[in-house]
Amino acid sequence: MPNPTAAMLVIGDEILSGRTRDANMHFLAQELVKHGVDLKEVRIVSDDREAIVTTVKALSETYDEVFTSGGIGPTHDDITADCIAEAFGCHIDVRDDAAALLRAHWERRGVEITNARMRMARIPDGATLIDNPVSIAPGFTVGNVHIMAGVPAVFQAMVATILPRITGGQPLLSQSLRIERGEGEIAEPLGALAKEYADLSFGSYPYSQNGVFGANVVVRGVDGARIDEAMTKLAEMFPA
Amino acid sequence: MPNPTAAMLVIGDEILSGRTRDANMHFLAQELVKHGVDLKEVRIVSDDREAIVTTVKALSETYDEVFTSGGIGPTHDDITADCIAEAFGCHIDVRDDAAALLRAHWERRGVEITNARMRMARIPDGATLIDNPVSIAPGFTVGNVHIMAGVPAVFQAMVATILPRITGGQPLLSQSLRIERGEGEIAEPLGALAKEYADLSFGSYPYSQNGVFGANVVVRGVDGARIDEAMTKLAEMFPA
Repeated sequence: MPNPTAAMLVIGDEILSGRTRDANMHFLAQELVKHGVDLKEVRIVSDDREAIVTTVKALSETYDEVFTSGGIGPTHDDITADCIAEAFGCHIDVRDDAAALLRAHWERRGVEITNARMRMARIPDGATLIDNPVSIAPGFTVGNVHIMAGVPAVFQAMVATILPRITGGQPLLSQSLRIERGEGEIAEPLGALAKEYADLSFGSYPYSQNGVFGANVVVRGVDGARIDEAMTKLAEMFPA
Repeated sequence: MPNPTAAMLVIGDEILSGRTRDANMHFLAQELVKHGVDLKEVRIVSDDREAIVTTVKALSETYDEVFTSGGIGPTHDDITADCIAEAFGCHIDVRDDAAALLRAHWERRGVEITNARMRMARIPDGATLIDNPVSIAPGFTVGNVHIMAGVPAVFQAMVATILPRITGGQPLLSQSLRIERGEGEIAEPLGALAKEYADLSFGSYPYSQNGVFGANVVVRGVDGARIDEAMTKLAEMFPA
């Protein structure tokens, strides 16, 4: 059975404007590989209602699982929860279970309960909450879409909660070989090897370092013994 | 007149599998802001023909300019040029001008000219070449889509070539204020200020550091004096 497929949606003007370099995508990609879920596509859109609604719908219909990051805080630009409700046609309001979590947390810390803060308890009807051990305000799952915070520490904690709920496939294994030759030189024998091992995927990632060109060749697949075999042949073809 | 809009398409299994952390998106985002082009969306897809063709078409129809990175080398997984030709319905083959550039470069360096290497001279009919001062193999522009290499040094050089060809708008200016209070506390006054300065955009980006929560508030717009004014009010609202 093929692995389940996934997409990620990053919501954030701060990334599109070059102010912040996204960290969550790289983290999620690494976690999904280990869990046997194939990340097929990532999209980054701005804090714009129509862009978020349209993209969530498209990704939710195309992939088995969708992960979003960003836009679930208390400020005026945090519109993700409302957009998700719109995309799925659910009612949304401050929900008792989420409000109770937040109230208990704030009372313990002596934090004033404001309307703005209570925006973080706006959860679409029928959604399942995702625990936030870092700052309590929960994420949530609607259908196959998992809505998580953009702050990396919170995002990572939410991914840790959500992944065990998702049935993964076979973890994708990989090995790589650094070959100090230009890609033009390795392309033909590498292409032939890729045809011979059609059950594996062969990627060639060029680099230039101090004016010298080379490539990291990565062999990926679910069968470790086959990868070993292909790597041995690869190393013989391109001795250091 | 509003600024031109742009999208970026990153082509690469190595990013979706978590092996590599993309650097080109962050670089392009920063360059576009300076040039007055609004980056509205980024998509990352795998080295898959259908995904690339479909995505290029969709982005090209939606935005003024589209920038792609990756998949134009000589190896079997470099399929971007052929996908672009398919998306635009153009013929593609080794083109004389690109081949001449590469041949001259390789002859100078005593590099053997192989069929695989010549793949890098496959350029769709009607495309305009984009100079590659780093490793010669050119990028190219078809319609409103600019096809560039994934290797960061080459990508950056190609962006430097292409940006002066694009009519930009007004550079987006921004100022930020680090506020050491939880977003819940600043959300209401910030929302009111954002309404008062509707010509500017206000983003709030929460952080947590050593267990303390705060937010970086970023005010963006094209009128520097208006941003100064809003920042002064913001600093008065939240004295350090």
